[in-house]
Amino acid sequence: MGQADYPQICPGGGLIISWQLKRKRVLLVGGGPVAAGRLVNVKDADAIVTVICPSSGLCGEMKYRIHVEKSVDEYQDRVFGGKDDLMGGYDMVLTAIDDAALSREICQMARALRIPVNVADVPPECDFYFGSLIRRGPLQVMVSTGGKGPRIAAQTRRIIQRAIPENLGQAIENVGRLRAMLRSEAPQAAAGPKRMSWMIDVCEKWSFDELATLEEEEMRIILRGWKDGSVPSARQVRGIRRTLPDSKSIRKAIAGRCPVAGYISPWLAGFAGILLGSAITSTLFIVRSSKRA
Amino acid sequence: MGQADYPQICPGGGLIISWQLKRKRVLLVGGGPVAAGRLVNVKDADAIVTVICPSSGLCGEMKYRIHVEKSVDEYQDRVFGGKDDLMGGYDMVLTAIDDAALSREICQMARALRIPVNVADVPPECDFYFGSLIRRGPLQVMVSTGGKGPRIAAQTRRIIQRAIPENLGQAIENVGRLRAMLRSEAPQAAAGPKRMSWMIDVCEKWSFDELATLEEEEMRIILRGWKDGSVPSARQVRGIRRTLPDSKSIRKAIAGRCPVAGYISPWLAGFAGILLGSAITSTLFIVRSSKRA
Repeated sequence: MGQADYPQICPGGGLIISWQLKRKRVLLVGGGPVAAGRLVNVKDADAIVTVICPSSGLCGEMKYRIHVEKSVDEYQDRVFGGKDDLMGGYDMVLTAIDDAALSREICQMARALRIPVNVADVPPECDFYFGSLIRRGPLQVMVSTGGKGPRIAAQTRRIIQRAIPENLGQAIENVGRLRAMLRSEAPQAAAGPKRMSWMIDVCEKWSFDELATLEEEEMRIILRGWKDGSVPSARQVRGIRRTLPDSKSIRKAIAGRCPVAGYISPWLAGFAGILLGSAITSTLFIVRSSKRA
Repeated sequence: MGQADYPQICPGGGLIISWQLKRKRVLLVGGGPVAAGRLVNVKDADAIVTVICPSSGLCGEMKYRIHVEKSVDEYQDRVFGGKDDLMGGYDMVLTAIDDAALSREICQMARALRIPVNVADVPPECDFYFGSLIRRGPLQVMVSTGGKGPRIAAQTRRIIQRAIPENLGQAIENVGRLRAMLRSEAPQAAAGPKRMSWMIDVCEKWSFDELATLEEEEMRIILRGWKDGSVPSARQVRGIRRTLPDSKSIRKAIAGRCPVAGYISPWLAGFAGILLGSAITSTLFIVRSSKRA
């Protein structure tokens, strides 16, 4: 019962969660750039979206999403008409309009109906906030600085974005595919723990670069090890081609800050320097002595 | 209306949001390690928490949180008793118990009452999922890999965790304090845009290291620049002490993967190599020629 090892509670944050919107209905009131951002957020989460906004209020992106991409499931070309508009069986309401009083009103109505609601620009009224999101395929990273300042939030986001290897999303995707293949090969619930420990072995034996470039044929070769609990390495599956591990991501991390440094090892540079210095000096001495001779 | 510049919708994710729980009531059913983790999550977000779990089912951490730290607002030493237990005006229900059937039942009851609910281990039933969280003071980073595999999720989390400079949380905290001081100095709503652009200047002129070590006295000195719209630099405020910018964080990022490389610049190494090579060769030539002489 000692406190030593327990994480410290650190108040003042929000509860960061991944809200499930698959086949859920979302009402989005507004058609400007903020609304367009929200639309992408909820479509990324597979929601069924209704947009209410007069066509005169649609920004370029919203027009594109509605009329060209057709990613809005239902578009109502009109202004928000009051409480009845919230009665369509919605699971979430988002507003992004300039009218703060109307926003507040919609918020209260949604709350009375117990529908989760976010109102752009009126934070104290919201059930939840949006943060800064980084997306790479199945990988979602959300950065929240608790509203301490927009610039430092953007800087923080950039640091984290730069740190994520380019191919990590693909690696995660492929691990998911391999896992699904394993599940259909060994679907028994009892095999759960063994499946999990085998998948862990795969993730430890294969680097991100290697996982990111996995092809289906190679997945099948790896799966052959499942029965005797072994995991063939990338070297075994691929021969000795493609063995460089994660050096690319190290370089990238450095190159983000200092474009050249990432590509040159200091050891190599030092050694090359010794050779170069030695060559120059030898040449000078040899030239001098041949002149004397 | 071209599609060129608009971000691509990338389905299959969740909607990652920061749910606001300040002064909201949360019911947590369960007392094991998973429940203890949930407790920390919701207390981090300032919730008022009721735990229902027989004392025989409490893990060490939960006992510590309830009896020593006293961070549980209400503890009920009993098993969950049915629908009536959800009627206490809760804003969120979390369960972390071993009984999957009971979990499902609680979930359905909560849903009927339109209370957001998460049920550990029964993902399809949940309104929302928890992801892997990184917390540094006001900075919260959530990493979600969409359930593609626990190990690659942990690896991803580690990469991101390593990339976040140690002092970033403190830097964000200090920016928040400076911003609050500025607000009380210039509280007019009309000054909003000017305040924002001045704060942006501060964040651009001061490195994270410098911001993280800001003291209140220094904040007051910086604030003197507000009226004429100037931002004194760290050098101006502190003299020429402490001028090294962000090099520490670059080194850290590299050192995490390659402990030595981060500390040596390849340019420096190359240059040192030239000098060394040249020195060695000169010595050899001079020794040889002096022997001849």
